Amino acid sequence: MEQSLTNSRDSELLARASKVVPNGMWGHMATRAIGPGYPQFFSKSDGCRVWDAEGNEYIDFMCAWGPNILGYRHPEVNTAALAEIARGDIANGPTERMVELAELFVDTIDYADWALFQKNGTDATTTCVTIARATTGKRKILVARGSYHGAVPWCSPSVVGVTAEDRAHVIFFDYNNAQSLDEAVTGAGDDLAAILLTAFRHDLNRDQEMPDPAFLRHARSICDRTGAALILDDVRAGFRLDVRGSWAMHGVKPDLGAYSKAIANGWPLAAVAGNRRMLDGASKIFVTGSFWYGSAAMAASIKTIGILKSTNALAHMEAMGLRFREGLASIAERHGVVLHQTGPAQMPILRFENDPDLKIANTFCAAALRRGIYLHPKHNMFLSAAHQPADIDRALEAADAAMKDTVAANSGISHRTGA
Amino acid sequence: MEQSLTNSRDSELLARASKVVPNGMWGHMATRAIGPGYPQFFSKSDGCRVWDAEGNEYIDFMCAWGPNILGYRHPEVNTAALAEIARGDIANGPTERMVELAELFVDTIDYADWALFQKNGTDATTTCVTIARATTGKRKILVARGSYHGAVPWCSPSVVGVTAEDRAHVIFFDYNNAQSLDEAVTGAGDDLAAILLTAFRHDLNRDQEMPDPAFLRHARSICDRTGAALILDDVRAGFRLDVRGSWAMHGVKPDLGAYSKAIANGWPLAAVAGNRRMLDGASKIFVTGSFWYGSAAMAASIKTIGILKSTNALAHMEAMGLRFREGLASIAERHGVVLHQTGPAQMPILRFENDPDLKIANTFCAAALRRGIYLHPKHNMFLSAAHQPADIDRALEAADAAMKDTVAANSGISHRTGA
Repeated sequence: MEQSLTNSRDSELLARASKVVPNGMWGHMATRAIGPGYPQFFSKSDGCRVWDAEGNEYIDFMCAWGPNILGYRHPEVNTAALAEIARGDIANGPTERMVELAELFVDTIDYADWALFQKNGTDATTTCVTIARATTGKRKILVARGSYHGAVPWCSPSVVGVTAEDRAHVIFFDYNNAQSLDEAVTGAGDDLAAILLTAFRHDLNRDQEMPDPAFLRHARSICDRTGAALILDDVRAGFRLDVRGSWAMHGVKPDLGAYSKAIANGWPLAAVAGNRRMLDGASKIFVTGSFWYGSAAMAASIKTIGILKSTNALAHMEAMGLRFREGLASIAERHGVVLHQTGPAQMPILRFENDPDLKIANTFCAAALRRGIYLHPKHNMFLSAAHQPADIDRALEAADAAMKDTVAANSGISHRTGA
Repeated sequence: MEQSLTNSRDSELLARASKVVPNGMWGHMATRAIGPGYPQFFSKSDGCRVWDAEGNEYIDFMCAWGPNILGYRHPEVNTAALAEIARGDIANGPTERMVELAELFVDTIDYADWALFQKNGTDATTTCVTIARATTGKRKILVARGSYHGAVPWCSPSVVGVTAEDRAHVIFFDYNNAQSLDEAVTGAGDDLAAILLTAFRHDLNRDQEMPDPAFLRHARSICDRTGAALILDDVRAGFRLDVRGSWAMHGVKPDLGAYSKAIANGWPLAAVAGNRRMLDGASKIFVTGSFWYGSAAMAASIKTIGILKSTNALAHMEAMGLRFREGLASIAERHGVVLHQTGPAQMPILRFENDPDLKIANTFCAAALRRGIYLHPKHNMFLSAAHQPADIDRALEAADAAMKDTVAANSGISHRTGA
């Protein structure tokens, strides 16, 4: 059933925001980067649902861009965090929650001998790079072209306000391409500090790729040979694919890992995990932040990871992702549309054939949005453990109607027969 | 009355932490950087008091290193934040709290035409630098020698894991020294992007200095002449001296300001505020973080700033700082000790004459700690609006006894007659 598009509250808020916030909104949640119709402001979230400022309800497939893993406002997680707030979230040092959480990381993540905690994913990736340099005494960081590792000058996808020197020691290669990696290693000479890789290839606006295990083993062997650090940027995927770390399934252990997003089910937290070889560097560097010691987010993380380990949350999430993927594939088939669905089922991306300017994706997502389904036209999406079969089925019903609209509106859409 | 020093719980936690966290603790809250006896772990905070893991109670003069401004667990602030958590702290965008908070910043801070929100003070200082470069198209950032602006490679007080290129465009000068600033400006040539200054000189382990208004005006005139950005790093002092910004009292307006720590009374939040001239750069850069949109911390900030504006909290805090300062001066006088007390009364630093290795300061602070008073031997401290005359008087009573111990233990202590 199509919702009213009315959202005058959002327009009012955007008009006010435009007077006091650059562009009315900054960063990855700015909706001007996606098609029209997306609400900028929200008023409520619960389980797998979000409500915009006007009160329109959506079944959500973005999960706050990752943080929501067990369901928004998860009662057990919030109860654990609120107990810390009742005692005092902050003081002049951490509470024992910090020790418990570090122990849990070490017990859970297959390569982790230690952990430290922060607030942003970018804190974690930047600290991994700093630790790699401190440990190795080398400078060059090898990064896959197009991978997102944060939004500060050394790694931002934008170069506005960035100097060449900020990236003087970054060398690019192509994800999953051993020859390209070898060339980058050669380029680093005897100055190789680290190879930095996302859990899988989850770049914006392209089909996702799982890492080739042989490629990961090749990267591992380079680091073993040279002493460089293999860094897993698990900020986006961490704890969503496998609590042991996103490469456990591939049998490859990084030296350092960066975490954030889902680790505390939406409470602000990031983490670096590392092995014993990286401990010396980690012990010598100075990193800190005013709120990195807060106890509430740590308690939320302990509870979140505990639930992920003790329940079938991850298997359920994957099953819901597969149900959605298979349903969408049937819908595309039925409407004669070529739809690419790639990446892990719990972190899917949708791409239409012959859609370079995203006209088709935007039409489809806007049509789904009008029917109360929040998808994303070019970024990977996220399932949560709160998604239930009935939610997926309702989303598929909306997607079916949205696909019909999309085919009607886009005469150039690639049909199965023309693929 | 001297407390038992027993804190076996802290020792147990430290032993556990040492196995799973680099050095057992990282960053500015690691107590190995200060004298023995300081607890690493806390279990509770309330008002102007903190409790260590063993349950020992302290009247606190660190305020979580700044974030506590109205009192730990302030009921009104926490009620506002918890209402957001009950509705959902995060979704796929901000709530209207973001607009309200940006409007409040613009209404409150004398130079602010816009604001954006983040999590760490370092996020804010780094973003100010990026905006300055984006706006000016220039690269050089002038920074006062010894000033702390965060803990990432371009500005960290440690160079471990940092490359020379990370600081390639940073030029140092001496705070409050116009000639030194002029030399740095000359060094920048036609590539000057910004002059970055803390609210006052609050460097570690030295007497604090208020900014010379003539120096600030000189910096302002350089920026007016060259088009560079004058950046106020108000992370540590912001909203504690003056809600309008810490230079309002000096009649100098920066172009950009960085905020964090006290702005949400301990809820994790940072902010950049800027004027219209910096809006173009601010609109072009890309900065973001997974939790920068969370509504709870924004609601906490709205309430915190509202209380600071509508009550005498700041005047009270300053009065409590003065009461403490005057009391300590009398105690030092009475014991014949030369004690330097500098900086704003609500952000005091204590330094003993002829104490290069901090032996005297450590003795004094450890003796105060044993009597339930949490001071810092080398970093500036913080008063909060929750400190009451009775708390200050009890702290002074402890300080008197601690000073007696200190004089007894340090035969080389500088006496008033020898100063």
